[in-house]
Amino acid sequence: MMRILITGAAGMIGAKLVARLLADGQLGGKAIAGLILHDLVAPLPLPSVIPVVCLAGDLAARGASEALVAHRPDVIFHLAGVVSGEAEANFELGYSVNLDGTRALFEAIRSAGYGPRVVYASTTAVFGGPFPEVIPDDFAPTPQSSYGTQKLMGEALLADYTRRGVMDGVGLRLPTICVRPGKANRAASSFFSGIIREPLNGLVANLPVARDWVHTMASPRAAVGFFLHAAVMDTARIGHRRSLTLPGVAVTVAEQIAALTRVAGPKVASLIVEAPDPAVWAIVQTWPRRFAASRARELGFMAETDFDQIIQAYIEDDLRRG
Amino acid sequence: MMRILITGAAGMIGAKLVARLLADGQLGGKAIAGLILHDLVAPLPLPSVIPVVCLAGDLAARGASEALVAHRPDVIFHLAGVVSGEAEANFELGYSVNLDGTRALFEAIRSAGYGPRVVYASTTAVFGGPFPEVIPDDFAPTPQSSYGTQKLMGEALLADYTRRGVMDGVGLRLPTICVRPGKANRAASSFFSGIIREPLNGLVANLPVARDWVHTMASPRAAVGFFLHAAVMDTARIGHRRSLTLPGVAVTVAEQIAALTRVAGPKVASLIVEAPDPAVWAIVQTWPRRFAASRARELGFMAETDFDQIIQAYIEDDLRRG
Repeated sequence: MMRILITGAAGMIGAKLVARLLADGQLGGKAIAGLILHDLVAPLPLPSVIPVVCLAGDLAARGASEALVAHRPDVIFHLAGVVSGEAEANFELGYSVNLDGTRALFEAIRSAGYGPRVVYASTTAVFGGPFPEVIPDDFAPTPQSSYGTQKLMGEALLADYTRRGVMDGVGLRLPTICVRPGKANRAASSFFSGIIREPLNGLVANLPVARDWVHTMASPRAAVGFFLHAAVMDTARIGHRRSLTLPGVAVTVAEQIAALTRVAGPKVASLIVEAPDPAVWAIVQTWPRRFAASRARELGFMAETDFDQIIQAYIEDDLRRG
Repeated sequence: MMRILITGAAGMIGAKLVARLLADGQLGGKAIAGLILHDLVAPLPLPSVIPVVCLAGDLAARGASEALVAHRPDVIFHLAGVVSGEAEANFELGYSVNLDGTRALFEAIRSAGYGPRVVYASTTAVFGGPFPEVIPDDFAPTPQSSYGTQKLMGEALLADYTRRGVMDGVGLRLPTICVRPGKANRAASSFFSGIIREPLNGLVANLPVARDWVHTMASPRAAVGFFLHAAVMDTARIGHRRSLTLPGVAVTVAEQIAALTRVAGPKVASLIVEAPDPAVWAIVQTWPRRFAASRARELGFMAETDFDQIIQAYIEDDLRRG
């Protein structure tokens, strides 16, 4: 029997992770005895035979993290965080949520003193250029955003608290998640999902960048798989470098569009229109393109192997379910 | 005219930096209008025509950093910190002083809003093994101590606050400083200084490790030079990777002893006695040996070029002055 805590449970990946855990009813062969879900707003309770506790609040607030850890979850998925654009726009909020919230959670675990598995959502935004064509696992992270900085600091804490035996931590540097369901957002990366999602929903999608630009992506389904694998894997195999750069599919925008044409036909793909946006293009060009992700692959983390599969995952998991 | 703040001013390097600044009377061609010295205990005021303010306290305490930054120092040397062994022995103290103190200082600078040069004392302890024979500048830091973790987090803050225009930060990853004056301490690295310092003072020195072990060192004089150079250099040349691994002299213990023999004679060197210490040897073997330090060298940071010079610096700066 195991209890599981998920922070950021109301977010896109958090909600999918919760749904998957409730559907599976077990993790690593052990029945799930209860889920504790946390976010800034209380996640919606879902119909389930598994007891689910939903809590809202700020992890950095006094007593908040202690109250969550008091449930003594065996596995903690720490997904809570202010996203990249918001952390850049609001300096204090980003450091408060992404750094102080993470540290408060880890401190609560240290006080509780029982050593749970902690799976921490990090990001490839810990890396800053100049980049080699393929980023190796031991490439030094030099973030170029406050979000990347805060996540890197969280990775450092995770490693030190793990080394000290406070927790058994695994940090996951997620690639860009695509296809994101729902509406476009103002993130510069939004179009990577938009050019697939909008046409599949019969809508026109703007393409703001050059078609030969390479980007690495994994589906929300793959992301959920990463978290589940990190929760049950043998961490003795990781060694002390606890944060892993995860695999994904590295494709050009043109290859994304070719995959959409194969999966959904040329009429759907024709809904993509060129709309060059110099501001988006300038940001995108500062991003890494390919990752070796050798350690994660050797440790059993699996992503899609082509972009067609990423589109199929969206169709099966989101489009058909509405 | 410039005002200069030094945190950790009562420490070994801090005190030497203060003495050098008072002796020079200027920094980068500008007369020093005042020094603000800070440490846990108030640094001793020195006879000087330059006004010196000495303050004591905890940088992380409410209002403490603001009070220092209220002097609007043009250059801030941030040397304050709990050392490696203490940060490992006292978890809370290490995070409080090394992380919270640094963040409080940087936040005070952000509130003041005037963008001073900040030179931050980091450490090669940000690196963790396995190591290549020579550690390149872009080797990914994975610290194996709480001290290294806290310093790495400080580097991340320094880079982000610099990117945001809060400060003009330079992080200095200092190699082992040798010859440390004064008494032996309980640091595992203490013997690197001890085997030179004790014989020069007519005392027996224990050698706890193998003679073929390679270690990289720079003198306290070189360290002061690093700080002064970082305070006046053109930071536009650094780019966004604001923390630099500094050069030093990479020598075996046998080469250290050979240098001592050349400089002070075989009688002095004969005061070194083999006293293998498995505990010290186990720690030392986890340490990096050589650093490329290419960027720092290109940017004009200069260390000694052989170990004889390191011994001479000790004799001139500490032994003769008592």
